[in-house]
Amino acid sequence: MTKVQTRSVRHFVSLEQFENHEIISMIEKAITYKNQRTFPSYADKYAVNCFFEQSTRTHKSFEMAERRMGVQVLDFQPSMSSVQKGESLYDTVLTLQAIGVDLVVIRHGEEGYYNKLIESRHIHCSIINGGDGAGQHPSQSLLDLMTIYEEYGSFENLEVAISGDLTHSRVAKSNMQILKRLGAKIFFTGPQEWYDPSFEEYGTYSTIDKLIDKVDVMMLLRVQYERHEDTDIRFSKQTYLQKYGITFERENRMKPSAIIMHPAPVNRGIEIEDQLVECSRSRIVTQMENGVYARMAIIDLLLEHR
Amino acid sequence: MTKVQTRSVRHFVSLEQFENHEIISMIEKAITYKNQRTFPSYADKYAVNCFFEQSTRTHKSFEMAERRMGVQVLDFQPSMSSVQKGESLYDTVLTLQAIGVDLVVIRHGEEGYYNKLIESRHIHCSIINGGDGAGQHPSQSLLDLMTIYEEYGSFENLEVAISGDLTHSRVAKSNMQILKRLGAKIFFTGPQEWYDPSFEEYGTYSTIDKLIDKVDVMMLLRVQYERHEDTDIRFSKQTYLQKYGITFERENRMKPSAIIMHPAPVNRGIEIEDQLVECSRSRIVTQMENGVYARMAIIDLLLEHR
Amino acid sequence: MTKVQTRSVRHFVSLEQFENHEIISMIEKAITYKNQRTFPSYADKYAVNCFFEQSTRTHKSFEMAERRMGVQVLDFQPSMSSVQKGESLYDTVLTLQAIGVDLVVIRHGEEGYYNKLIESRHIHCSIINGGDGAGQHPSQSLLDLMTIYEEYGSFENLEVAISGDLTHSRVAKSNMQILKRLGAKIFFTGPQEWYDPSFEEYGTYSTIDKLIDKVDVMMLLRVQYERHEDTDIRFSKQTYLQKYGITFERENRMKPSAIIMHPAPVNRGIEIEDQLVECSRSRIVTQMENGVYARMAIIDLLLEHR
Repeated sequence: MTKVQTRSVRHFVSLEQFENHEIISMIEKAITYKNQRTFPSYADKYAVNCFFEQSTRTHKSFEMAERRMGVQVLDFQPSMSSVQKGESLYDTVLTLQAIGVDLVVIRHGEEGYYNKLIESRHIHCSIINGGDGAGQHPSQSLLDLMTIYEEYGSFENLEVAISGDLTHSRVAKSNMQILKRLGAKIFFTGPQEWYDPSFEEYGTYSTIDKLIDKVDVMMLLRVQYERHEDTDIRFSKQTYLQKYGITFERENRMKPSAIIMHPAPVNRGIEIEDQLVECSRSRIVTQMENGVYARMAIIDLLLEHR
Repeated sequence: MTKVQTRSVRHFVSLEQFENHEIISMIEKAITYKNQRTFPSYADKYAVNCFFEQSTRTHKSFEMAERRMGVQVLDFQPSMSSVQKGESLYDTVLTLQAIGVDLVVIRHGEEGYYNKLIESRHIHCSIINGGDGAGQHPSQSLLDLMTIYEEYGSFENLEVAISGDLTHSRVAKSNMQILKRLGAKIFFTGPQEWYDPSFEEYGTYSTIDKLIDKVDVMMLLRVQYERHEDTDIRFSKQTYLQKYGITFERENRMKPSAIIMHPAPVNRGIEIEDQLVECSRSRIVTQMENGVYARMAIIDLLLEHR
Repeated sequence: MTKVQTRSVRHFVSLEQFENHEIISMIEKAITYKNQRTFPSYADKYAVNCFFEQSTRTHKSFEMAERRMGVQVLDFQPSMSSVQKGESLYDTVLTLQAIGVDLVVIRHGEEGYYNKLIESRHIHCSIINGGDGAGQHPSQSLLDLMTIYEEYGSFENLEVAISGDLTHSRVAKSNMQILKRLGAKIFFTGPQEWYDPSFEEYGTYSTIDKLIDKVDVMMLLRVQYERHEDTDIRFSKQTYLQKYGITFERENRMKPSAIIMHPAPVNRGIEIEDQLVECSRSRIVTQMENGVYARMAIIDLLLEHR
């Protein structure tokens, strides 16, 4: 691959902001980090991870990525911060910047929370979007793409099914758009209530049993029971696996080379049979592992020009 | 300036404990850190920041100061500590000291909480007061003084107005005492309900419109709505700005060289017009920036003789 | 002492898993760390301390031990983790391992929580049990043993009384078993409601006034008011000290060489007279100090073969 010249990027809030070759370049950088286990060093840089929503994977993965690159990490607990006195996110970031923070990773429940930050002429630290409400989750998208690319070396004509809570997933929307422009063929499955006709632009809806034996990648989405009203769910935890999930029988029908992905946390026994979470075609643990390297590539992109 | 010999200081709980020349010496040290960007290194020292009240600025500023000097920082979450089992602050500090902590920064709601600690012959780690209830907030005072000194090079005959919630502010009381003995002329303004006749010792009360065009420094205080009963407030959020705050019109009448200060978090649109928070005469962001260097000077004072 | 060859140990969940000579070897290693103040360096290792129950001493002591050995420590807040979305402890550990964590210290309310972890063929990071419900607290046991051994150089024929909440204490059960097999003579005292006949295997029950003048070690246990229903307590806070605790009078009757221990947090004035907590025969602060070195010995044992 030709070495791609990266433009100077200040913030990383959405994967849509990048060209195909830039995405591939980040993925290849992440894979290099993973294989060579040598990383750029940013020992004079300071990061704060502001997670206003619960997270283990994304939060700790960013922290690990930062630490592996020598970045100093300041802890931030929303419940013990001045946010509790009514301080805005903007003023919180302004404060962190003033005390010398270079990089602020934010997960926040408000969709597009970052717009006010990246549009301000007073904010010059780098913002990474760690998830904005039902909006974007670009570092998750990047690690998903990295996991597929690591497996197949290309996205051209790959058949990818995305299954589950499509309308509420911040990852699904990113992934369907980027995967399509990278050349993959997208299929959707899962409860029809969670499929939206606007997705037709990217792929076609089908049942899991029609898709399971032909796709190269089965991307499962988490059923976000915590985001649903009880009355919204027209299927119980018990029936989801049988109707839409990866049972032993369905896993058995998959192509030998096909892989299963899930952003986790997995609802074991709902999206996928408990004992299949760590099966040989599952890349669920690999995704978590790759997340650290994908995030290092993102951080490097932002810090290399600072 | 003549090099001032510092005496050995174990704790930093109040700015009143220091002579004028000692305060100036700390300020000058902080300014040197800021300008030269080289700091003493205390890589074998350990600090814990125990914030029992919410804070972003002070907490993260101390953490940044510690990290920039190579001090190792242990995280402390009151809600996950044995304080929840009824362990006293004294026993918490005794524990931290026993495991090898050199420096404990504490913010606590109880005024004078530190007396039991600094009077004990068993406590030999250094205590820094990060704010005690309605009592002191000496590191905030020091950064305020540093910001004024950085601007004017002296306190002699400077005209400083302190505006707002004077009776509830832990900073106001410190600042009025120290500023007066450093040679400044103090004025008070804001709601008369929040002015106490005992302040006459330090300065005179006036309306903001009589002061705005003559003062060199306008120090605004945060309206601490979280500390007031609703019935205590005889003015609404809507009228405070017009009656007591920095409007565009008032900012316009200030002397060209005059500066605006606020310890933050600012109630935008209450103490000051939203768009003036980052105006050219505002030193609000500078104060946050200076806080790191002022706290480094404090830490250096305590650690240099340990 | 002959240099004992340590076997490769992956997890540290119970002190019972170790032979006498292995325990002595860990204690001697901890004492060497304390005296020589040089420690092994594990700068390329990563630890996470997952405390699902409140703790100051154990949590911060592990963190200090890790930091003194150069281990990088990632912060973990259960309340801000995906545990809140229903993620299991197993999946949390699987995630931490996937992102590159070598060592996970866990305190959790469920007795034996670690069994599922150490029996899984997918978990290969090291687990240290920082306390499991009413089960074990092996690092506390080790530091208790270290404190006795540091004092007396041996356990043979030492007379040790364990006093207090024997049935609810995770430390008492470990200590009575290990102390007995190391050669000590065990006595029990405290409220009879908290004595269980099954303890007869290890020692005999008596009143404190019959034991106080003959024992070498008086190990007090915390009255865990937070774990008791009010109705379960047939004695008030006021009478506990007089009936079962260390009063001035009892302390005075102890042998000159005898020591007082308590795992802390102490209920001052209940298990022991307030002013005796830091008396000359109290090793309560020493225990906290020793905890760091005992935990370093544990961590070294697990990391040296990784």
